[in-house]
Amino acid sequence: MPVGESKGRAEIYATVKAEWFRLFTSKEIGEALEKLAGKEASLDPGEQALVQRTRSIYQRSKAIPPDLFRTFNEAKSKAYSVWVEAKEKSDFKIFQPALEEIIGFVRKFAELYGYDKNPYDALLPDYEPGMTAENLKGIIKPLREKLVPFVSLLRKQSDQPDETILQGHFPEELQTKLSLEALRVIRYDFNQGRLDTTVHPFTISIGPDDTRVTTHFLPDKLAPALFATLHEGGHAIYDQGIHPTMKWVYLDSGYSHGLHESQSRMFENMVGRSLSFWKFFYPRLQGIFPYYKNIQLKDFHRAVNTVKPSLIRIYADEVTYNLHIMLRFEIEEALLKGEIEARDLPGLWNTKMQEYLGILPENDAKGVLQDVHWSSGYVGYFPTYMLGNLYAAQLFVAAKKEMRELEEEITKGNFKNLLAWLRAKVHSFGYVREAPELLREVTGDGPSSEPWLKYIKDKFGKIYGIS
Amino acid sequence: MPVGESKGRAEIYATVKAEWFRLFTSKEIGEALEKLAGKEASLDPGEQALVQRTRSIYQRSKAIPPDLFRTFNEAKSKAYSVWVEAKEKSDFKIFQPALEEIIGFVRKFAELYGYDKNPYDALLPDYEPGMTAENLKGIIKPLREKLVPFVSLLRKQSDQPDETILQGHFPEELQTKLSLEALRVIRYDFNQGRLDTTVHPFTISIGPDDTRVTTHFLPDKLAPALFATLHEGGHAIYDQGIHPTMKWVYLDSGYSHGLHESQSRMFENMVGRSLSFWKFFYPRLQGIFPYYKNIQLKDFHRAVNTVKPSLIRIYADEVTYNLHIMLRFEIEEALLKGEIEARDLPGLWNTKMQEYLGILPENDAKGVLQDVHWSSGYVGYFPTYMLGNLYAAQLFVAAKKEMRELEEEITKGNFKNLLAWLRAKVHSFGYVREAPELLREVTGDGPSSEPWLKYIKDKFGKIYGIS
Repeated sequence: MPVGESKGRAEIYATVKAEWFRLFTSKEIGEALEKLAGKEASLDPGEQALVQRTRSIYQRSKAIPPDLFRTFNEAKSKAYSVWVEAKEKSDFKIFQPALEEIIGFVRKFAELYGYDKNPYDALLPDYEPGMTAENLKGIIKPLREKLVPFVSLLRKQSDQPDETILQGHFPEELQTKLSLEALRVIRYDFNQGRLDTTVHPFTISIGPDDTRVTTHFLPDKLAPALFATLHEGGHAIYDQGIHPTMKWVYLDSGYSHGLHESQSRMFENMVGRSLSFWKFFYPRLQGIFPYYKNIQLKDFHRAVNTVKPSLIRIYADEVTYNLHIMLRFEIEEALLKGEIEARDLPGLWNTKMQEYLGILPENDAKGVLQDVHWSSGYVGYFPTYMLGNLYAAQLFVAAKKEMRELEEEITKGNFKNLLAWLRAKVHSFGYVREAPELLREVTGDGPSSEPWLKYIKDKFGKIYGIS
Repeated sequence: MPVGESKGRAEIYATVKAEWFRLFTSKEIGEALEKLAGKEASLDPGEQALVQRTRSIYQRSKAIPPDLFRTFNEAKSKAYSVWVEAKEKSDFKIFQPALEEIIGFVRKFAELYGYDKNPYDALLPDYEPGMTAENLKGIIKPLREKLVPFVSLLRKQSDQPDETILQGHFPEELQTKLSLEALRVIRYDFNQGRLDTTVHPFTISIGPDDTRVTTHFLPDKLAPALFATLHEGGHAIYDQGIHPTMKWVYLDSGYSHGLHESQSRMFENMVGRSLSFWKFFYPRLQGIFPYYKNIQLKDFHRAVNTVKPSLIRIYADEVTYNLHIMLRFEIEEALLKGEIEARDLPGLWNTKMQEYLGILPENDAKGVLQDVHWSSGYVGYFPTYMLGNLYAAQLFVAAKKEMRELEEEITKGNFKNLLAWLRAKVHSFGYVREAPELLREVTGDGPSSEPWLKYIKDKFGKIYGIS
């Protein structure tokens, strides 16, 4: 997008958002839902889930007075600009009043939506319907207890991967070739999409059958663009597989962001950073970048799986990523309960960074100000990143159980069966089914950190030579 | 756009179009126009023109029963697919029934809109408000009488330009550089747009401040992409300069397409194919393609101004282009009056091609089936291409009269004053003012072929060595 369009685009987005709110609170939707009440059994499972999702979004939207919705949108727009400035100047104090205002709104929303025990439960349905704060805490506790010492153990190993082999000179046209090849292999459908470049990679559906992915090339680093492509490719494959009806529905909240993220994480990490995938893909990479003909597959695979605590969430590796999320969840929950206030954030942030990751941000920009989410009114969103990782492991384990040949297929670059399985079990219910219910049906278990922990310990135990 | 999206995009477009129709026939618009009646004098000239334009579109839209509008859209969609097939097979007979249906609709519209003398007058306001068939005929008659023999005269000259110097090997990244440089020179605003590639070049406004241009690179030809870029650049400069209010209005008919085209033609031809422009731009081209260091500016300039009758309108040169339009206008007018029927078209087409251009299409695909317009329901559109050429000359003559230094500025690549003049006189009234009125105000004269004829005779007389 040209720079000069930012104001126009913001107005367009606000208009669409207001229209979305108007539609989801309209008499027509209410009447349609009433008509459908009790008759849902006659619908197919996808339609049932769509009705359920619509009912839930309708009821939540109705709880918010239109004026409050409007002033919230204005506050968010202001808070975002203030956050940009505060981050540039690395000064939390600049952001604090705007953040206080956002928290005020979010607390009000929690009261309007209503909840049983924990105000956090009132916000979760926007991002992860069916999930509760208690569930999250049940998931996080064992995860934190096992993950923090495991990261320490990895860091203590004498034989660390050599990341420098991922640096060099990688011309954009060759990186493009590599990214396109990776997307083709994982069966991203170019008939219904394309790859473009951007500053911060994302996936966007321009129309019902036009789901585009973007990536960002660095001239001196190989890994960031390739894994961003695989990540966005996973998101896109999910969108390309959803029920045709859902392709015409604009939803930016009220569905499981965790399930969406599970698909990006599966293709970025469980597939994209697996030895099986690289057994197939490494010769292709070597064909494009002959430099790697002198580097062993094993060393390359270790390099793309380097574990190293980072200050910045978006640069975190597969193992430490979830620790960044726990920290944010704990802060958000305490904020909503009124146990802490905005002014307490920088201190609390740094304490927890030290505790979970053993590193301390040298300034607010690299600490509490790093993420855009709160300035955009997203409180309750962060856990979905962690859940994405966990769900990905749960689903991948289930897929392997049902398809004994899967690992073997991946070493041959054959993703036909995996895609068909994901289409049938996950994608076709995209945006409509709640994650806990879907996971129970597909994996036999609700959201859990066990499969992910096991996967991480197995994989990185091998890579780091821990027996 | 990915191929698989075509159906989805068509549905999106149809939805927007239906919404456009609904809005322009809504009670709210009617009431707003009533309220404004008689109070227009208190508005600024741009607002006055906007009210006038809205009133005209409202009244015309109200004349069409919604059901007729819907069935017409369906017929167009069908006719377009049939036309694609007919053109592929080069068989007019395949297209004839669909064309008859379209003509039936268009004749009905003419009756519903109403007219005094000529049914063509009922259709013109969609594409060129303020223009009449009689005006057009008054413009075309002298044009045809002088142009046909002038083309013959040019073709008889012994010293023809050497077009082969425009062939060679032109890598896309270098052509991109050249196109970007050309757009920068003519002051296309990259802060509010960008250049992309496509099959058939076009300009599109994605948002209020995001007017994008596209071009199409051929690896072995230099001219097509460069002049397409300048052409689309002219369209885009017009859109970038319109009144801010108009940037939020979606109009695909009911405004002067001729004025829009005048801007693309001015930058493609009056500027882009002028010796003054190339005095400045040729060294830049030589910098990118050093091959041209061995070719004289004069020979290059002659090459890009080669006159050679072509079967296909879109490949026509600056001089013969208008002859293609006259032929189409005469056929459309006779069709609407019922003097001829669809079945007569292939014969009539070929007769007129022979008469005006001295060449005969070897098949329907290269003749009567070449253009998409009729299959899309556009009858009355073609004259705006010719008017674009004529208006461009009228405006360019007026600009030179008011800015004595303009020619000199162009040889220095300085387009600041020309752009400011166009902004003030033409662009700021974009989409709202009628061309005849605007031209009278800016040039002192209504639409006329005289300035264009004089410009053509002067320019090509020199190029072809006719004293």
